Amino acid sequence: MADEVLFEFLHMEIVSHIYKEQQSGKAELDNKDRAVCVSVLEGMGFRVGQGIIERLTRDTPSFKDELDIMKFICKDFWTKVFRRQIDNLRTNHQGTYVLQDNKFTLLTQLSNGKQYLDQAPRYLAFSCGVVRGALSNLGMESVVTAEVSIMPSCKFQVVIQKL
Amino acid sequence: MADEVLFEFLHMEIVSHIYKEQQSGKAELDNKDRAVCVSVLEGMGFRVGQGIIERLTRDTPSFKDELDIMKFICKDFWTKVFRRQIDNLRTNHQGTYVLQDNKFTLLTQLSNGKQYLDQAPRYLAFSCGVVRGALSNLGMESVVTAEVSIMPSCKFQVVIQKL
Repeated sequence: MADEVLFEFLHMEIVSHIYKEQQSGKAELDNKDRAVCVSVLEGMGFRVGQGIIERLTRDTPSFKDELDIMKFICKDFWTKVFRRQIDNLRTNHQGTYVLQDNKFTLLTQLSNGKQYLDQAPRYLAFSCGVVRGALSNLGMESVVTAEVSIMPSCKFQVVIQKL
Repeated sequence: MADEVLFEFLHMEIVSHIYKEQQSGKAELDNKDRAVCVSVLEGMGFRVGQGIIERLTRDTPSFKDELDIMKFICKDFWTKVFRRQIDNLRTNHQGTYVLQDNKFTLLTQLSNGKQYLDQAPRYLAFSCGVVRGALSNLGMESVVTAEVSIMPSCKFQVVIQKL
């Protein structure tokens, strides 16, 4: 029990620390400040994702294609990191994937009402980075974004960057 | 597996972020800078420790005395948070406790040689805060410090503050 809680609590602290440090003295964060916070959190997530995927795939046979990698991310990776599988994976078969998690771990600590909906993005930046870091170490450069319409459900959009 | 790794990787990132942000531009950190970093990490740990102990003790009968609480910290709490028990608990029966962990989780990622010994304190500040936060929510105000003489073994000293 406490291990996951340890991560979740630490994650909450980090988010609050990064936003406070950016705000320091100002009355409100503007869009540029918010972008800096998201970028710092995303960068942390990226390096964490790289580390995790290295351990996870140590004994995994190599993947046959992009879709195979995405399925691994949705099942094995998601289960290990976020303790559940992705509920729905969709793709346009041109490098865009939408991963839907109906009960995203890092949002379940927040109230399900609408009043925290505008706070949700700050709790997703780290996770977007984790996914991007994992994909990057598997040889796929991507842009990962997330959106929430109803808490605690969350959609991650992965767009693979073709070289 | 990945859950604990997730926490450990995130912890590493935080430590590195806090120290980098304090250093910003300077060639080296002076003692005052280091104290600020330790204090930020300790503060995060404090709030995380408070959160964890609340969950952990929800179904625990109340403690009979200070030593009883310390034993709970060394066994149940340590196992849940750091995945092993404290190896040795000593006390002077006047409010000072020394908790020895011969293989402290957050140090096992570092090399066991002497070359990283001076880096060890930055990886202990958060954990000191976690212990202080847990004790604080159990009604005991304390000062918690840690020292490492041989990696990855670590001694935590808890001094209870009598009111």
